[in-house]
Amino acid sequence: MEAFSDGVFAIAATLLVLEIDLPLHGSPLERALNAWPGYLAYIASFLTIGAAWLTHSALTDRLTRADPLFMRINLVLLLVVAFLPFPTRVVAEALHSGNGERVFVTMYGLTLLAIRALLFALDEYASREQLYVRDNETDESRMEGRKLLSVLIGYVIAILVGLALPRLAGLFYFGIAIYLIVPFRQVARLLFGRA
Amino acid sequence: MEAFSDGVFAIAATLLVLEIDLPLHGSPLERALNAWPGYLAYIASFLTIGAAWLTHSALTDRLTRADPLFMRINLVLLLVVAFLPFPTRVVAEALHSGNGERVFVTMYGLTLLAIRALLFALDEYASREQLYVRDNETDESRMEGRKLLSVLIGYVIAILVGLALPRLAGLFYFGIAIYLIVPFRQVARLLFGRA
Amino acid sequence: MEAFSDGVFAIAATLLVLEIDLPLHGSPLERALNAWPGYLAYIASFLTIGAAWLTHSALTDRLTRADPLFMRINLVLLLVVAFLPFPTRVVAEALHSGNGERVFVTMYGLTLLAIRALLFALDEYASREQLYVRDNETDESRMEGRKLLSVLIGYVIAILVGLALPRLAGLFYFGIAIYLIVPFRQVARLLFGRA
Amino acid sequence: MEAFSDGVFAIAATLLVLEIDLPLHGSPLERALNAWPGYLAYIASFLTIGAAWLTHSALTDRLTRADPLFMRINLVLLLVVAFLPFPTRVVAEALHSGNGERVFVTMYGLTLLAIRALLFALDEYASREQLYVRDNETDESRMEGRKLLSVLIGYVIAILVGLALPRLAGLFYFGIAIYLIVPFRQVARLLFGRA
Repeated sequence: MEAFSDGVFAIAATLLVLEIDLPLHGSPLERALNAWPGYLAYIASFLTIGAAWLTHSALTDRLTRADPLFMRINLVLLLVVAFLPFPTRVVAEALHSGNGERVFVTMYGLTLLAIRALLFALDEYASREQLYVRDNETDESRMEGRKLLSVLIGYVIAILVGLALPRLAGLFYFGIAIYLIVPFRQVARLLFGRA
Repeated sequence: MEAFSDGVFAIAATLLVLEIDLPLHGSPLERALNAWPGYLAYIASFLTIGAAWLTHSALTDRLTRADPLFMRINLVLLLVVAFLPFPTRVVAEALHSGNGERVFVTMYGLTLLAIRALLFALDEYASREQLYVRDNETDESRMEGRKLLSVLIGYVIAILVGLALPRLAGLFYFGIAIYLIVPFRQVARLLFGRA
Repeated sequence: MEAFSDGVFAIAATLLVLEIDLPLHGSPLERALNAWPGYLAYIASFLTIGAAWLTHSALTDRLTRADPLFMRINLVLLLVVAFLPFPTRVVAEALHSGNGERVFVTMYGLTLLAIRALLFALDEYASREQLYVRDNETDESRMEGRKLLSVLIGYVIAILVGLALPRLAGLFYFGIAIYLIVPFRQVARLLFGRA
Repeated sequence: MEAFSDGVFAIAATLLVLEIDLPLHGSPLERALNAWPGYLAYIASFLTIGAAWLTHSALTDRLTRADPLFMRINLVLLLVVAFLPFPTRVVAEALHSGNGERVFVTMYGLTLLAIRALLFALDEYASREQLYVRDNETDESRMEGRKLLSVLIGYVIAILVGLALPRLAGLFYFGIAIYLIVPFRQVARLLFGRA
């Protein structure tokens, strides 16, 4: 199961680049710079998939076994992860043309929310059905666990904000992606000494 | 062999997203909603590939060895699985434009039938040539085995229905995909208590 | 090294489907049928990549170690394998439009020749540098070895034929792909009893 | 972590082929030959990704463990590697049309520089945090280490040159890619005898 899941995460992340496009008009430098919504959407989606993969790895590393239902929830998670390149493309087009931002930023946010909700469901299900190794919660996995819920709430807020201010919501999604992959505690330890 | 097979299943499933397209005309919300044939075809094909991968894993997990002919039948199976994004694209276009539904729904159904028929052939061949571990039929693999034949018959019926009513056949393919990945027995156990 | 190589083989084979296109004009059934050059090119290229992967697996399974030069020849092989979707697309377009068949069938043939020549070089290099396990030549690997040279010669002939009769050469490439994946000895044994 | 990383390297390298396109006009032979910027950009990018993967493998093989920050730097590296197909496409278009060469060759060079800089950062971080196996520096890994810094400097020079002479810089990037994958010492040993 892990080879298939890792494959889908890696492919979905790498396919994102096919959705970046240069505007057709303007000087070469303008065309390169005006493609910024594509770059931002690429970075936000790549980091979101990368973070989802980190969370997913932390989950599956602690599994002793995977029952049929777990594998099916996992398949639905992969279905949504593999779908992300599509809203990434349309949100970049909408931000570039300024047309339909509200609709497509919301579609993008709902996809991100679904990914996190399914990761949360996988974690809950594995805990309840006792699929996890006991006493094997590492620092990494506990950190991931706490991020799971706070990020879910963050996405719900961002989707609501996006109904009025889609660009602000886009910034939120970008910020959450950064937040998801920065290991704050370790960075703090590196910066302020290892007490 | 498993790394290559898992790779093709994962890539074919993830490439499906590239075939979804927004209609060019209409308000943003209309464009997002009118793309429904693309979404449905994506979900049906993703789940079908996911289910084929689950069946394939259950098969290969029980192998003690793979002879040359087994590997070649497997290669033909992968050829058809990797082909699925093409009929998925054309069936979504036909459902959207209402043009050529009969032809392209049938092409889609024949591809799905070929995937299941080749899985069935792999299973039969491995049994006859005694490539399987003895006495190692798990609940999961027996369940998969029974689904194999019933789904084959389901596809033949759906293809025949589709010659007259292509949209109904499309619904059948979607339903079979759902049926393939829901682990009914386990869900029943969860809902009605674990007797 | 094997994970990366298997990945490139699997991805190149699966990307081929993106190069199939329906003709724009005609009734739905005509459009589906007139796409035949795309289907044939897809099958020929998929089986060629599949066969190259089988040969490559037979090679790498017998390695005790891989030195830096072996890994670089391998990288050039992967570069050519990953290039195959491009000539596959242009050869299908040329066969469909009847325009430039000679040029593009030759480009396709040269790519197939390069794949086999590099597999041959890998095998020769590994033998000479004693990278192989001793006395571990299986039936499968010996069969692969003999096919390697005969197929190389077959491609050279087909390329020369294609300068005058491109469609006949195209048929040759298709035939060689089939020949490469059919395990004749085992099929004969199955058909005529296992003496 | 390695399966995911290897996957992204393999997919990014294989996706490059989708960016090659034939010019629309001219005789078939002219069209095949005039696509040379696409072929060169494909080869340069494929070998650059292949070389980055070799360096990355040499790094990760020596790891005893990976801490959270190492995995995040790795994720940013993968983000840039997976981005490479985009500048590859635009640089090939610019070289073909002769329009915007300076801008897009520079964008290409900055991407290559970022890949090498992040590999350098990964190596430095792993050394400083003592994530490496002690005393396990092989010939291969030491050779890789020395190439890391010299190539970084090479890219900086090529980017500066490219501001005035973009085509010369393009040649540099092609040359560096070749330099990166040729194992000079082993080739010399093969050519001049193994003293």
